Amino acid sequence: MTAIAPSLHISSPPNSSSIDWQAIASELATIVGDRYVVRTREELLAYECDGLTSYKQQPALVVLPRSTAEVAAVVKVCDRHQIPFVARGSGTGLSGGALPLANSMLIVTSRMNKILEVDFENQRVVVQPGVINNWVTQAVSGSGFYYAPDPSSQVICSIGGNVAENSGGVHCLKYGVTTNHVLGLKIVLPNGEVKDIGGKIPEAPGYDLTGVFVGSEGTLGIATEITLKILKSAESIQVLLADFTNVEAAGATVSDVIGAGLIPGGMEIMDNMSINAVEDTVATNCYPRDAAAILLIEIDGLASEVAESAKRVEAICYQNGARNVAIATEPEQRLRLWKGRKAAFAAMGRLSPDYYVQDGVIPRTKLTYVLQEIAKLSEQYGYHVANVFHAGDGNLHPLILYNNAEAGALETVEELGGEILKLCVRVGGSISGEHGIGADKKCYMPEMFSETDLETMRWLRDTFDPKGIANPTKILPTPRTCGEGAKPSHDAKYKLSDRF
Amino acid sequence: MTAIAPSLHISSPPNSSSIDWQAIASELATIVGDRYVVRTREELLAYECDGLTSYKQQPALVVLPRSTAEVAAVVKVCDRHQIPFVARGSGTGLSGGALPLANSMLIVTSRMNKILEVDFENQRVVVQPGVINNWVTQAVSGSGFYYAPDPSSQVICSIGGNVAENSGGVHCLKYGVTTNHVLGLKIVLPNGEVKDIGGKIPEAPGYDLTGVFVGSEGTLGIATEITLKILKSAESIQVLLADFTNVEAAGATVSDVIGAGLIPGGMEIMDNMSINAVEDTVATNCYPRDAAAILLIEIDGLASEVAESAKRVEAICYQNGARNVAIATEPEQRLRLWKGRKAAFAAMGRLSPDYYVQDGVIPRTKLTYVLQEIAKLSEQYGYHVANVFHAGDGNLHPLILYNNAEAGALETVEELGGEILKLCVRVGGSISGEHGIGADKKCYMPEMFSETDLETMRWLRDTFDPKGIANPTKILPTPRTCGEGAKPSHDAKYKLSDRF
Repeated sequence: MTAIAPSLHISSPPNSSSIDWQAIASELATIVGDRYVVRTREELLAYECDGLTSYKQQPALVVLPRSTAEVAAVVKVCDRHQIPFVARGSGTGLSGGALPLANSMLIVTSRMNKILEVDFENQRVVVQPGVINNWVTQAVSGSGFYYAPDPSSQVICSIGGNVAENSGGVHCLKYGVTTNHVLGLKIVLPNGEVKDIGGKIPEAPGYDLTGVFVGSEGTLGIATEITLKILKSAESIQVLLADFTNVEAAGATVSDVIGAGLIPGGMEIMDNMSINAVEDTVATNCYPRDAAAILLIEIDGLASEVAESAKRVEAICYQNGARNVAIATEPEQRLRLWKGRKAAFAAMGRLSPDYYVQDGVIPRTKLTYVLQEIAKLSEQYGYHVANVFHAGDGNLHPLILYNNAEAGALETVEELGGEILKLCVRVGGSISGEHGIGADKKCYMPEMFSETDLETMRWLRDTFDPKGIANPTKILPTPRTCGEGAKPSHDAKYKLSDRF
Repeated sequence: MTAIAPSLHISSPPNSSSIDWQAIASELATIVGDRYVVRTREELLAYECDGLTSYKQQPALVVLPRSTAEVAAVVKVCDRHQIPFVARGSGTGLSGGALPLANSMLIVTSRMNKILEVDFENQRVVVQPGVINNWVTQAVSGSGFYYAPDPSSQVICSIGGNVAENSGGVHCLKYGVTTNHVLGLKIVLPNGEVKDIGGKIPEAPGYDLTGVFVGSEGTLGIATEITLKILKSAESIQVLLADFTNVEAAGATVSDVIGAGLIPGGMEIMDNMSINAVEDTVATNCYPRDAAAILLIEIDGLASEVAESAKRVEAICYQNGARNVAIATEPEQRLRLWKGRKAAFAAMGRLSPDYYVQDGVIPRTKLTYVLQEIAKLSEQYGYHVANVFHAGDGNLHPLILYNNAEAGALETVEELGGEILKLCVRVGGSISGEHGIGADKKCYMPEMFSETDLETMRWLRDTFDPKGIANPTKILPTPRTCGEGAKPSHDAKYKLSDRF
């Protein structure tokens, strides 16, 4: 491979073990105020992991700035002392994107929780990164608007985290993921400079830097103001719940609905294990426990359109062998149907002490094959895998149930998760749909990307962050963290200690 | 400003006046065959401009490769000899993106005109860059699909050119511009390396390089294979033609339609001057010549949805004072209503020997104000300005009528166009909606972007193209082409000879 920009180095975290953290803490205190610099071991406990709870690492310091100026000043300290920093919103991410690094600074945006501007005429909202996803809809729903991307964690996850991970949700089939709803950003670069990219107008000329930043998982800087697009609330919504005696039929229904030119807001499949877990936990009393799979379909739009689409979708469900199709038209009925799906991840706690959720994408047409292969892998490894997925997008969420107290279980479960990701890539899919790569999946990037592809990404990263201090070691594999030294062979298991 | 990556140079075209073009032509002939190397002055005439016909420049050579391998080999010749190259599809671009540079090589993709793969199940089509936009829809319409982005030039413009300029069209209000429909690319980098970015799956992890490449106007390399998303054709389409006695009422109607939560496929406004020009030329006999403006609204979807939406839109038109609303439901009626709009640019030739079309974006809510200001500028400069625009997107296309034979007319008209762009930026808009920046508008980039914004774009460009040979001098302003030496003062006129 010929290097295109050979003068650029490859990002790697600087050695920051010799830093005088006392002095740094004092410096930070002058910027954000003493109470917003967290330094005791006890207080740091709250920040030692994100939603990927199987991995824990305390940062050296946590700092909670309140404004763009404070973030910029904090990042300048990092730049000057070459301190790696990790940005964190609510810490709900599932790929370890906000997992702290040893001897690093964690910059937490939870105090930056203001909605700065609501512009109904142009359907734009400007928020600080710590604003919770659901607050945006709450702020505009009175005027008939909403913010479309809706991760399951939407009542707690932050918009800043959504931007970092390019989050999805059940309604992204029709409306797209976060990047389709972010028009502009104010960002603090890894050297502390403040920049505005994009704006209120979609598709600005020049290179699409907003598009690059969304999904960059904290490696290109920190977003401190985010301009979002809001949509007009649908006039009418109906939710259909179809139950099937085999998962394949549910999958075929999804393909047929899309093939008929219908685009529901979301189409979700849950398998038998997931159904029983949620019924045990939240008791919707409407998911049939003996179904092999249920398919939830939400249809939104004008009243007449929704009525007609629902009728057609119902017919397609029955054509594919659905035993029953329930239709919810009223808000409380709809919420009841969704309740189990929204609680699916949490419900796994009923079945097992721990679970490991993966996030892969496959072409819709490969659904049946992939589910069969996952079942085989589950049997082979001896761990149950429950399946919940955004079926319309082909976005799988296999939930592997295990007990972390069992020695070696996590490593084996990770290996099983990795086999599922490789399977996704083999059928023409992707190793991430909406959770990002973070720390968890970077070693699988070479499954999906060639070395020159990864090299291009490194150049881009180094262009923004030549010192390699912005969330280093995340996303992109390095020989040190994923190479021969890190694990005995490409397919063998690897340990946490080798990775961070 | 602090440079982040100070080791990178700022792209500028190398001095290639001393190149032995005879030897280069012979080398190229061994790659593509002798007949596909164009070198005589007469033959080169056909390539001396693109759709921005007021500027002409012959390249040193034109080469017409047929495959990715040939493009890569040709680009390697450029890389080795530091020859600037400009990629060109059909040459219909309106901002001079494919305008040749002196002593450069023009790489024309018109022989790369194959549809490589049609995958109905996953709704993907893979094409070579020379494939004409409209061919994609033709290839899939029999199975009930279409390709959404539809520039006015769709029967002649190439997909490669659409990718370079991130082209739009009348249906982009609902479906988005080219970048929303390109999932993957095979690209030849400016050093001749071949890379695959993106794929068939939307939202791949890692940095969104596909998003960066789309709209990069040939400055990051040449796309040689393009994976497009195709959509299911709508079951029903209706087109409404409303006529108004003032343009403001047409603009208010557009805002009210969007405000009502309706999203038509497209909403287009044409003013009185445009109406008369097209009636003189293509005689639709359905655009009322005495209307101040007509508003064309296309609604697509399920039959019941379209019927209901059309009724609501019609009512909104009348509420805003429409004199009449015609509704076309049958294909031939719809084509007749669209015919004038599609012919609008060409029809300007009836009114004036030459026209200069601009492309700016404004927030929809500023439409009335901006049209009044354009009228004032038109009077001040003494040139007629006809207005045709994608009203739903706030994307204006002012057409300035002039006579190029008149000394100084072009420069004055450009200045007027520039004032309109500055006006767009002042109200929070953009200097380009869908035509790109190219050669025409780069000197206005500083109106919209700060120096650090432009610097970030330069870093990105240099990362892909450290030798600065891929369409150099386009998009980004340089002191040499837009600085003090190039024009006496920021607001004064500048000449072609200073710019290329």
